[in-house]
Amino acid sequence: MRTVGIIGLGLIGGSMAIDLKRRGFADRVLGVEQDSVAAGAAVTIGLVDEVVPYEECIQKADIIVVAVPVNAAVKMVPDILNRFDAAASDKVVIDVCSTKSQICHATQYHPRRSQFVSTHPMAGTEYSGPWAAQPGLFDGRACIFANSEESSPKALQTIGQLYGVLNMRPIYMNADQHDVHTAYVSHISHVTSFALALTVLDKEKDEKHIFDLASGGFSSTVRLAKSSADMWVPILTQNHDNILHVMDTYIEKMKEFRDAVSTFDEARLRELIAEANRIKKILR
Amino acid sequence: MRTVGIIGLGLIGGSMAIDLKRRGFADRVLGVEQDSVAAGAAVTIGLVDEVVPYEECIQKADIIVVAVPVNAAVKMVPDILNRFDAAASDKVVIDVCSTKSQICHATQYHPRRSQFVSTHPMAGTEYSGPWAAQPGLFDGRACIFANSEESSPKALQTIGQLYGVLNMRPIYMNADQHDVHTAYVSHISHVTSFALALTVLDKEKDEKHIFDLASGGFSSTVRLAKSSADMWVPILTQNHDNILHVMDTYIEKMKEFRDAVSTFDEARLRELIAEANRIKKILR
Repeated sequence: MRTVGIIGLGLIGGSMAIDLKRRGFADRVLGVEQDSVAAGAAVTIGLVDEVVPYEECIQKADIIVVAVPVNAAVKMVPDILNRFDAAASDKVVIDVCSTKSQICHATQYHPRRSQFVSTHPMAGTEYSGPWAAQPGLFDGRACIFANSEESSPKALQTIGQLYGVLNMRPIYMNADQHDVHTAYVSHISHVTSFALALTVLDKEKDEKHIFDLASGGFSSTVRLAKSSADMWVPILTQNHDNILHVMDTYIEKMKEFRDAVSTFDEARLRELIAEANRIKKILR
Repeated sequence: MRTVGIIGLGLIGGSMAIDLKRRGFADRVLGVEQDSVAAGAAVTIGLVDEVVPYEECIQKADIIVVAVPVNAAVKMVPDILNRFDAAASDKVVIDVCSTKSQICHATQYHPRRSQFVSTHPMAGTEYSGPWAAQPGLFDGRACIFANSEESSPKALQTIGQLYGVLNMRPIYMNADQHDVHTAYVSHISHVTSFALALTVLDKEKDEKHIFDLASGGFSSTVRLAKSSADMWVPILTQNHDNILHVMDTYIEKMKEFRDAVSTFDEARLRELIAEANRIKKILR
């Protein structure tokens, strides 16, 4: 009889709840959700067996998944480890945050650090809340295990099984290295989408034209601009240094394009586009 | 017995060929393609009934679709109109280019201007060539008719039927206005994707990490960076003024984000993201 407790019933927490229960990893799923509307919805939709208070979740669950924004998780994970007593030596807590340095630094000297596994399941959509949860969200995607050498082999084995049930490919990585890489391939994409939405909204006062003229290209490029501030403000501030660095590179590249367009330099434009096209070989 | 001639058997020309034949609008589809590999592929795949020389296509086809990059189309459309003699007064030529000002200006005083219909079917993918052609590409999308008052009612009716068969929604717009709007909702998306690909390729020397960490977000944001230079260099230079204007706005928005990140200004970041989120109400 295994009980999984999920704190934060949004897109990630909710989607985990669905598949961990359906696929038999959890006999019982408890949820913690401070927003009463979201809590009610999670029960109505059937994401969890029961919504319980925070303390009760920690007490009753064998595995606790912290699926709240990263600024809250940084404080919550050490608090949960503090509440693990001698009788709770088999319990494991995991986080699923998009930045890993701060949470790993905040826990590294905790006496129960080995009961914490820091993970980043690389899956999601631009929607949020329990109503955005969906089965199969994680299938076939990568899951980062950050600083896994600080977790106990037993905890790692349990969480390895959990992500195995979700059909994720494990990748082991240093937390700081993770934050550099995700700044480049995930965080910057969100910033460029936000900026694109702002640009278009600023200029296209006639909103009907945006809708009419938005071919597939615009919709997919701007899709991430629907992402929530609650999630992204903490990511952008926590991964501050890496994101600034990549934004500066990005602004330089935009300026190179701008200069080539402004001088009608077709050869340079052709060169820049050919170089950008190399992304084809890397992404399917 | 209606013959449609398609000049340029790439993604757009090839996809039109498929559906105009399958759906019974054209009894016969002739193709013109200067690249011999593409021409061979178009016949093998069965996109067209026959690949013929340019002159023969103009002579035999009732409707001629110019589906070549915009810099070539600007010269080709007047040349085709020149070849229409008195016996060809029922023939119609259309272009399907992504910029409309130059081609409309280049033809406006042509004595046979009324036999030309300038259109922009707003559909596509990031792939190119006859092998990228697909049935149903245009279904449900918008098709711009630029400066349609310069076309004859009869030509407009014929081309209206053609796009009706392709299931496109017609939108009538001034050519210059079209180029402003598409700079904002289509052209800039391509530039931001190219710049994103360049940024990531520049920094992520270990290409495996791009692949592993690229969740759906990155892939969709960078998708357009696979687009071809042959198509995009002419668009960027033809729509020069509008694109420069929108790029400058975009760079400003990126800098606003950069400044908010660099000063840890969470309130400002929250404001910027909330504003960007308004795109949700406009796009489905």
